[in-house]
Amino acid sequence: MDEFDLISPLDFRYISEKEKKLYSAFLSENARIKYQAKVELALVKVLARKGIAPKKAVPELEKAVEKISAKEVYEEEKKIKHDVRALVNCLRKKVSSESKPFIHFSATSYDIVDTSNALRYKNAVNEIILPSLIELEKELIRLALKYKKTPQIGRTHGQFAEPITFGFFIANYVDRLGNRINEIKRARNELSGKFSGAVGAYNASSLLIKNPEEIEKEIMKELGLKTQLISTQVAHPEQFEDLMHSLVSAFTVLANLADDMRNLQRSEINEIAEFFDSKQVGSSTMPHKRNPINFENVKSFWKQFMPRMNTVYLDAISEHQRDLTNSASVRFVPELFAGLSLSANRLTKTLKNIAVDKESMDFNLEKSSESIVAEPLYIILAKHCHTNAHEKVRELTVKAKKEKIPLIELAFMDNEIIPFLDKFSEKEIELLLNVKTYYGLSEQKTIKVCSYWKKELKKK
Amino acid sequence: MDEFDLISPLDFRYISEKEKKLYSAFLSENARIKYQAKVELALVKVLARKGIAPKKAVPELEKAVEKISAKEVYEEEKKIKHDVRALVNCLRKKVSSESKPFIHFSATSYDIVDTSNALRYKNAVNEIILPSLIELEKELIRLALKYKKTPQIGRTHGQFAEPITFGFFIANYVDRLGNRINEIKRARNELSGKFSGAVGAYNASSLLIKNPEEIEKEIMKELGLKTQLISTQVAHPEQFEDLMHSLVSAFTVLANLADDMRNLQRSEINEIAEFFDSKQVGSSTMPHKRNPINFENVKSFWKQFMPRMNTVYLDAISEHQRDLTNSASVRFVPELFAGLSLSANRLTKTLKNIAVDKESMDFNLEKSSESIVAEPLYIILAKHCHTNAHEKVRELTVKAKKEKIPLIELAFMDNEIIPFLDKFSEKEIELLLNVKTYYGLSEQKTIKVCSYWKKELKKK
Amino acid sequence: MDEFDLISPLDFRYISEKEKKLYSAFLSENARIKYQAKVELALVKVLARKGIAPKKAVPELEKAVEKISAKEVYEEEKKIKHDVRALVNCLRKKVSSESKPFIHFSATSYDIVDTSNALRYKNAVNEIILPSLIELEKELIRLALKYKKTPQIGRTHGQFAEPITFGFFIANYVDRLGNRINEIKRARNELSGKFSGAVGAYNASSLLIKNPEEIEKEIMKELGLKTQLISTQVAHPEQFEDLMHSLVSAFTVLANLADDMRNLQRSEINEIAEFFDSKQVGSSTMPHKRNPINFENVKSFWKQFMPRMNTVYLDAISEHQRDLTNSASVRFVPELFAGLSLSANRLTKTLKNIAVDKESMDFNLEKSSESIVAEPLYIILAKHCHTNAHEKVRELTVKAKKEKIPLIELAFMDNEIIPFLDKFSEKEIELLLNVKTYYGLSEQKTIKVCSYWKKELKKK
Amino acid sequence: MDEFDLISPLDFRYISEKEKKLYSAFLSENARIKYQAKVELALVKVLARKGIAPKKAVPELEKAVEKISAKEVYEEEKKIKHDVRALVNCLRKKVSSESKPFIHFSATSYDIVDTSNALRYKNAVNEIILPSLIELEKELIRLALKYKKTPQIGRTHGQFAEPITFGFFIANYVDRLGNRINEIKRARNELSGKFSGAVGAYNASSLLIKNPEEIEKEIMKELGLKTQLISTQVAHPEQFEDLMHSLVSAFTVLANLADDMRNLQRSEINEIAEFFDSKQVGSSTMPHKRNPINFENVKSFWKQFMPRMNTVYLDAISEHQRDLTNSASVRFVPELFAGLSLSANRLTKTLKNIAVDKESMDFNLEKSSESIVAEPLYIILAKHCHTNAHEKVRELTVKAKKEKIPLIELAFMDNEIIPFLDKFSEKEIELLLNVKTYYGLSEQKTIKVCSYWKKELKKK
Repeated sequence: MDEFDLISPLDFRYISEKEKKLYSAFLSENARIKYQAKVELALVKVLARKGIAPKKAVPELEKAVEKISAKEVYEEEKKIKHDVRALVNCLRKKVSSESKPFIHFSATSYDIVDTSNALRYKNAVNEIILPSLIELEKELIRLALKYKKTPQIGRTHGQFAEPITFGFFIANYVDRLGNRINEIKRARNELSGKFSGAVGAYNASSLLIKNPEEIEKEIMKELGLKTQLISTQVAHPEQFEDLMHSLVSAFTVLANLADDMRNLQRSEINEIAEFFDSKQVGSSTMPHKRNPINFENVKSFWKQFMPRMNTVYLDAISEHQRDLTNSASVRFVPELFAGLSLSANRLTKTLKNIAVDKESMDFNLEKSSESIVAEPLYIILAKHCHTNAHEKVRELTVKAKKEKIPLIELAFMDNEIIPFLDKFSEKEIELLLNVKTYYGLSEQKTIKVCSYWKKELKKK
Repeated sequence: MDEFDLISPLDFRYISEKEKKLYSAFLSENARIKYQAKVELALVKVLARKGIAPKKAVPELEKAVEKISAKEVYEEEKKIKHDVRALVNCLRKKVSSESKPFIHFSATSYDIVDTSNALRYKNAVNEIILPSLIELEKELIRLALKYKKTPQIGRTHGQFAEPITFGFFIANYVDRLGNRINEIKRARNELSGKFSGAVGAYNASSLLIKNPEEIEKEIMKELGLKTQLISTQVAHPEQFEDLMHSLVSAFTVLANLADDMRNLQRSEINEIAEFFDSKQVGSSTMPHKRNPINFENVKSFWKQFMPRMNTVYLDAISEHQRDLTNSASVRFVPELFAGLSLSANRLTKTLKNIAVDKESMDFNLEKSSESIVAEPLYIILAKHCHTNAHEKVRELTVKAKKEKIPLIELAFMDNEIIPFLDKFSEKEIELLLNVKTYYGLSEQKTIKVCSYWKKELKKK
Repeated sequence: MDEFDLISPLDFRYISEKEKKLYSAFLSENARIKYQAKVELALVKVLARKGIAPKKAVPELEKAVEKISAKEVYEEEKKIKHDVRALVNCLRKKVSSESKPFIHFSATSYDIVDTSNALRYKNAVNEIILPSLIELEKELIRLALKYKKTPQIGRTHGQFAEPITFGFFIANYVDRLGNRINEIKRARNELSGKFSGAVGAYNASSLLIKNPEEIEKEIMKELGLKTQLISTQVAHPEQFEDLMHSLVSAFTVLANLADDMRNLQRSEINEIAEFFDSKQVGSSTMPHKRNPINFENVKSFWKQFMPRMNTVYLDAISEHQRDLTNSASVRFVPELFAGLSLSANRLTKTLKNIAVDKESMDFNLEKSSESIVAEPLYIILAKHCHTNAHEKVRELTVKAKKEKIPLIELAFMDNEIIPFLDKFSEKEIELLLNVKTYYGLSEQKTIKVCSYWKKELKKK
Repeated sequence: MDEFDLISPLDFRYISEKEKKLYSAFLSENARIKYQAKVELALVKVLARKGIAPKKAVPELEKAVEKISAKEVYEEEKKIKHDVRALVNCLRKKVSSESKPFIHFSATSYDIVDTSNALRYKNAVNEIILPSLIELEKELIRLALKYKKTPQIGRTHGQFAEPITFGFFIANYVDRLGNRINEIKRARNELSGKFSGAVGAYNASSLLIKNPEEIEKEIMKELGLKTQLISTQVAHPEQFEDLMHSLVSAFTVLANLADDMRNLQRSEINEIAEFFDSKQVGSSTMPHKRNPINFENVKSFWKQFMPRMNTVYLDAISEHQRDLTNSASVRFVPELFAGLSLSANRLTKTLKNIAVDKESMDFNLEKSSESIVAEPLYIILAKHCHTNAHEKVRELTVKAKKEKIPLIELAFMDNEIIPFLDKFSEKEIELLLNVKTYYGLSEQKTIKVCSYWKKELKKK
């Protein structure tokens, strides 16, 4: 098979060789089936421990599980048209006849499927999602601290607002992403399996075992998962929904960051730039182009994956003890894991190489200073008991714009304001003449936030 | 104004008089502005306590806040085209000139807007959402316990699966809804305000106050909210996103329950029925019709509101220190609160009056018994060491269907099975002949789940 | 009722007095019921014409229809819990007993509901949507023509690309919006009603009338609607879906335009500005702010309404001869009509008053000229048979950036390029030295597109 | 590469070998690049015809285009990081130096990308989508005609309504799907390319060619595409949006059909059944299960793909002359083509083998007859001038239910009704006693609809 004959673009275009190996271990069909086999093994281990299955069933099944492959299971599935039973048949073939009856003993398919998916997603969070996001978080912390004192004009509504530092801008993302990392961990911890049979009432297992709930709990303990308090044929979808929401929400933070960076890279703003290779071509007709293609790509991935949250909610509705109208749709879930991880990886790589143009930041800040002095002027006037300072300054800004005179000049010549000037402290005057330093607690906050998240990241 | 001239259907059609009063207190424009005024008051309180504002500003503003109305603010907004400044102007008019400068002192609009919305949503959760959901949860618990022993055929893929009890069916919803109630509480507890000024760096406030972060914390303490670690002009959107997800996710549980009930009300299944008034008309042409209109309505509301989660994610992206491309979209958020609450209320009311038709449940269970005996037969055979029990029974079901002979008869005459029959216990034989009792731990689980959630509901 | 106690923000906040009157005539509950009554009337007219109903039933019902109000119908609905039957009862009360049996004769509710909605939406398109969009389109045409020669730097990926004119930029929207107007008209023309009874098979009507399909056709003719070839209890949803798509798609054009305008209004770009009233406040703390609040608002409305297309698709699935899980969701449809119309109206008003800053456009274009000359240089070199012109120029742009020498200077001193210079025409040299005029067919295209759409708009 | 190591499930799980070959020809990366090369060739052909490029460039490029592969282009892309330029470089290497300058001459990347995608999607509609949908439509027509006289109870709200025939039920889908096929054709016909350069103003081309619009038109003619009236760097997204809507809308028809079939297959309804192989396993624990897995699968695919319409609308917003925040998201478009086609194929295959259980249909109809007679009774009473027939019959249905007496018996004994009985015609009486035949024009409509669509399908 030529990979360029594939229909889905993720595998052949976006996943690097290195990522592919890692992703496949959790997100591929081989991984899916391996995890199902692991759950079948956990069942037999517990049954053996309880004296229900023969001891030897455990090592036999361990070997069988090792050998199982998606290819083999798919061949069996072609014949019998049932995926889990196909796996069971393949495993049964590999063990002695004494062990055979205890494979899948008392289980329904979704005891295996839901439990193995919970485990697989948990591990995928640990091995794929968290490493990607944490690496990005660390890079953001590095950037925030590096530029904690670099003044930048803050912007609201795309308009010059008041100064911050570039580090402070980044520190906001440190906090948002950090918070999402914790949320993902929390959702991961709630993932739970079930082993309650075909309609959730332990019908079959209670024929065989005294306390089937105990068996269920031991299997989950074996696998490191929580048990749901009750279930139908399937585990309740809410824990999975929460995990998906936490991933989509983290993805949204990445998309916002990418958008901001794209905007900072606009020709007219020009405060940052993606690294550009000496051989790289920016446009097939405009040789000068340097486009924010990596930031654009991250936003684009988000646009593809965010709406899939609708599918998650749609799939959470399942009739009575379950229907299978999620059969195909849940199989696309691994795409979202991959999409988020590779977007984070791309962002990290891009941020590690961005050029921050302090000159441009200074230039823009300078350009803004004429107007943004309005806020500190109003605040200082109010502080010194001007009773209508906001409106007064607002009128002056209108006049300044009309007459093309700098606001501060106008203010210092204004008869209503002059009486207040004497009350202004030296520091206040200085600030009004050099609003570039009017960035408040930007530096302190940046340090505080970065320290906090450095510690938090160490938690499991 | 005639309410039937309104465009939006919520107010005139779906919200009852009683609900309207409650909803308006938190979800209307009057409520929105009241809450903003409350935050302005909290600011002045803290400023007075710190000796920055005069003491008398507090009682003056308290009176002003009481008198403020949306109508007044809207009139001012018409002139100056800025909603929060309009409120500030209206409040300023109502206090002495010594107090005037300290209203909104050092604040940016979103210090007020985001903080007041966090508070308002928190209260709306407490006063609207949780009461509605908890009442529904209690009704579900009542139903589950009432029917904990009422056998019902369980269904997967819309097909007869194995027996449960009607109470067990409901108990699954008790657990799912209970879990969502807790999730909503958790998300509610994380709602947080901000008071960090125009770009989040306390630019203005640090001109006035030594430790502006302390002011921020005291205001939040005053209001009973958490403070975000850092912010831009606006609070980070993630806590709000989490709340909205928890609401949409709870809504999805309601929709699933409504769907299940609709299906149980199908003419062919006929296990439950919505109450039908003696004067009620079911169809304008078919006088016999009894439609599940309330369950349908709940599903329909879900279809209207679930996709709005997309808007929540879209609104979470805001450029740099903020843009205002969420100006209108967030104003629709109260609709979702109302939609969820009134759907829960409708469900509660409908469930309180449903007719459960035990005869039909019995009839359907009886009908299923011929085929569903397959599972216990396979399980008992496997238990008694038949090495290929599933396949054996599967083949018998094919034969039974073809030859129109009950499966159990066929099995008891089968040469391969006969040798195993002697090993079957009396209880096993009995169960095979009366699969209606094959509902496993349905009753025990129902009791356990209901006890658990009765206790949980008492938590705040 | 105080309108500020409403939950839904559309009515009290966004719809102006003038819009309210227009919108109510088609989008309110009063309108909904008026249109249903119109369809009941059309039925009786046809029945009378066919000699089935008495002649006098027509004037009697005409009077009754005039008097009907939502209020009256809602009171009846409270008793019998069926909305259409409530209307029928109200109408029946107003006519003689000879006419009574022929009201709603042979009809099922959805004969009335679907047909009246088709008619109502059709009229709402004609009276609300199209006038709003056409007025916007005309304003865009005016702007495009006014600025057809005003050079502006074109931007791709937020980066300086090559020059266009501001009129050309607008002309692209003229074309896109024009195209959507035509698409909406097309979808409107396909709206169709049905009169085929409770399950679509004319069961009842074929008891009464020889050719019930003929009756159906005459009713639709009476109302100016198409008839569907076949239907269930309800009209097929696809024609309505197409209309909704056309509206959402038009809305997306508006959102794109709003985004572009917001970006052009960025402080650093500064090419356009929303009108700002002399009393208007831009920020509650930053007196200098001039925010693109109207463009932001339009984008925000789009974010609220675009995802509702999901609801449209969800509602298109209805079980068997219909279910009613769209009962509430379709009642929100008028909100989308209103949202689109008022967004268009807001855009029109804003565009009529925008300030176009030609100086800034010139400034930005000038700033870009150093780099954008790369494309014409490469093209002219290639034209004169340089075999690797793109790569050559690309390398020069890297060098120019590194050495901070204007690209064109560097090129004119380059040994590889010098031999080609002689081949360049005078016009080509001139263009390279003044890339501002390098805007191709911007002017011609603008004129062509505007002429085309001026004509198209005149079509019905 | 082991295909089971892939992340995306479409390729390894859902696409059959036969489908894979067909899909790859239009939907794979190899196809994408082949189509781009085709457009590059069309450009050179037109340039040669106009005397701008040398004649020999055409056969040279034809050969080059034949040899091009995604693999080669990807290797070049790795070096220069620009996909279209990579293709151009690969093509340039394969032609003489005289031809080199004319490859991609005056073009920007999106002249190639948008035009080639329009062509590729058009062909994919013709070769993949339409054949799949038309085969399904033909199967539906076959079924409709086969069962045109097979009575079935019609259901609204999941409740017995009035009788139809099974063919009539299917005929409604014939009409809906037929209508969507026509809509897809219409959208396909509007697909258009562009060749207007980097910002859409023909900047580069107007340096080289007298009438660049003519060149553009000739290229489109060469490829069989329409030309947009004006464009930016990219073609307007609306035509593509319309196509995507038409596909999603058709998909929704399939999902509705699948849902209906699933419901008809419920154990309690049991009117149809998916074919079940003699070796097929329905459940890993319940040997008797026969699940509607194919219908469930179609619904599930729809839940995965429907929400992607959000991505389409999101991608339609592109800043100024374009941004590239759709870079990745549009690459997932082929997944939707594949998803729709294979869902249609699966439906066709499943329908060809469904078992229609006429006995069950009869049984259900019989069961309904007691209540559904209410409509014809009311209609006939009204026809014979009972002035309050609906209410009278409604009251009788309540009584019938309460007293467990068949409605018709009760009616025939009712003092108010007895006087009317004499007026009833023999045929009317007969119908009331045998409501099974009360299916109106079901048969005639079925024939009419099928005839109509048989003819329509022949149109291109």
